[in-house]
Amino acid sequence: MRLIDEQAVENMALGAAVLGTGGGGDPYIGMLMARQAVREYGPVELYTLDELDDDDLIVPTAMMGAPTVMIEKMPNGDDIVNAFQVIGKYLNKPIRATMSIEAGGLNSVVPIYVAARLRLPMVDCDGMGRAFPEIQMVTHTIYGISSTPFSMADERGNIVILETINNRWTETFARSAAVNMGAMAMIACYAATVKQLKEAAVQGTMSKAHDIGVTIRRARVEEADPVSTVREAVGGILIFRGKIADVERRTVAGFARGVAHIHGIDDYADRELTLEFQNEHLVAKIDGEYAVTVPDLIALLDIDTGEPITTEGMRYGFRVAVIAMPCAEAWRTPKGLELAGPRYFGYDVDYVPVEERYGQGS
Amino acid sequence: MRLIDEQAVENMALGAAVLGTGGGGDPYIGMLMARQAVREYGPVELYTLDELDDDDLIVPTAMMGAPTVMIEKMPNGDDIVNAFQVIGKYLNKPIRATMSIEAGGLNSVVPIYVAARLRLPMVDCDGMGRAFPEIQMVTHTIYGISSTPFSMADERGNIVILETINNRWTETFARSAAVNMGAMAMIACYAATVKQLKEAAVQGTMSKAHDIGVTIRRARVEEADPVSTVREAVGGILIFRGKIADVERRTVAGFARGVAHIHGIDDYADRELTLEFQNEHLVAKIDGEYAVTVPDLIALLDIDTGEPITTEGMRYGFRVAVIAMPCAEAWRTPKGLELAGPRYFGYDVDYVPVEERYGQGS
Repeated sequence: MRLIDEQAVENMALGAAVLGTGGGGDPYIGMLMARQAVREYGPVELYTLDELDDDDLIVPTAMMGAPTVMIEKMPNGDDIVNAFQVIGKYLNKPIRATMSIEAGGLNSVVPIYVAARLRLPMVDCDGMGRAFPEIQMVTHTIYGISSTPFSMADERGNIVILETINNRWTETFARSAAVNMGAMAMIACYAATVKQLKEAAVQGTMSKAHDIGVTIRRARVEEADPVSTVREAVGGILIFRGKIADVERRTVAGFARGVAHIHGIDDYADRELTLEFQNEHLVAKIDGEYAVTVPDLIALLDIDTGEPITTEGMRYGFRVAVIAMPCAEAWRTPKGLELAGPRYFGYDVDYVPVEERYGQGS
Repeated sequence: MRLIDEQAVENMALGAAVLGTGGGGDPYIGMLMARQAVREYGPVELYTLDELDDDDLIVPTAMMGAPTVMIEKMPNGDDIVNAFQVIGKYLNKPIRATMSIEAGGLNSVVPIYVAARLRLPMVDCDGMGRAFPEIQMVTHTIYGISSTPFSMADERGNIVILETINNRWTETFARSAAVNMGAMAMIACYAATVKQLKEAAVQGTMSKAHDIGVTIRRARVEEADPVSTVREAVGGILIFRGKIADVERRTVAGFARGVAHIHGIDDYADRELTLEFQNEHLVAKIDGEYAVTVPDLIALLDIDTGEPITTEGMRYGFRVAVIAMPCAEAWRTPKGLELAGPRYFGYDVDYVPVEERYGQGS
């Protein structure tokens, strides 16, 4: 068990935003919410799965919706607590802890807020090892865990509870309800026992995010090359350096979709990288050729600070390094690729692990 | 207490379709479903509110969605039973009986199906005394009864439960979820005690529908003028006779909307009646002047048989009589008109009771 204090919240939000592959929500808003809760209610206990009983029930908490909206509409906190408590009431069972459903600046730390307010522990794992745009895209689905009962709450006090026949249907109903709630909703779902999570979850995500966050902050102080430092810390591959030339974006059906064009600089001069996203980065092409695709991770880092840039934070003129990282192994199985491979998102291309494309350690 | 047998089901579906003011679902489908259940499980007990205990809990059941879709997609029966049972489980309370939420060919008799299958009684009342297109438009809302917990079920086995801050929000969430379910959903909602319903419900709707149905069947046999016979039975006013010349319809956001143009015949030759509808008929204008508006009832009857024609059943060439009927008193209060008066539906006109426009008994 380790304790998540205010400093740890900041590091986790920053580090998780690298793993969030452009999505998972704004790290600043998440950090503010979670840090305030830790300040008010005290540090949160973070357990590994091995430290808990196999029968303990864990319920993840998160925010869903378009991150472009999250920037303008802060959750009020009662909404996420509502969403979480509804599940316990509905199942009529005690919940031992909460966890992150995805790695991302906001969604990694939203559960810290819930845990602090309700004085519950958190578990050091998540359901993706990255962020994904749709509800069914979690390793829980690969291992047959139901997303329902799935609860949603808004800041007005409305609650929606779903019981669906599969996790794809949950996505359908939840997306509409999130649009009704203002393109954003606080959710609790994927209740599972510790025993189930030992098989189904991506473990160690919170501590990994923490370590990445610490590395970024240290690079700043030490005036080392921050991008190289972060790249090494995440085990990533540098695939491009450039300047953001254009970002087309639109909020469609509760998602932030779009394309960013990045003009190469330094070794990459005269080349262009295009980045297509749906909340998260989906594929990167260099001069029209696929360079990285989902489910592998794509992170944009500010060249000067090494800080991650979310899809909604991309702006003309930003100088960025593009880093690719291998996804969790579960995503490379046939079930994983069916759920979140390039073809699911409409790209007519087979998945090639990024380290095969680039060679290990390039 | 009276018993609803197969013959009563047919009469109720037919009579309720007159009160359904063009909506409330197709009487034929409703009749088939309910009659089959009564045949299989036995007649259903129909109680007046006075015959039950004040504390008894009553939960209405219904179908929601575009009636144009209902014609093509029969409910499978398990869906509506699911929706009903979810409410009892959620509230953890025994439910004494079900009831109709609206008068309409389908929605008056859907609860008979539920009652027969679960061997529960039904109550002789409804929440409108007619049909209305939106969830919050029930006399329950006028008297402060919440629509939630509100459950929805589809034929696949998906369930949505809503807990909202007011009945207008229920409409918003339920409409999206119904669209996700295929523009149609089976619902249970507006749980209330008998004591509450004595104030809030429109009483005697089922027996009234039954009597109207009997009248229509008798008129057919006796070869009397069926339209006059039905008009007298419902206490209505004949406002037009004509031939349907054109029906524009579209299914939008889960509603069947449109306009019908009716060219006058007999005493009404050279005049035109236009009928605007949203599942139900909303307003009738004769030569551009308002003749009847919501919340008063507008029924289209087949001139030859006296049978009611639903909005989705209107076809070019049908010869029809247009009958107007006064709505239940609750709809004429300020709260009632705010909820379902002409201005709510976007018509810039004050409500004038139909018997004032036409004079009593014309």
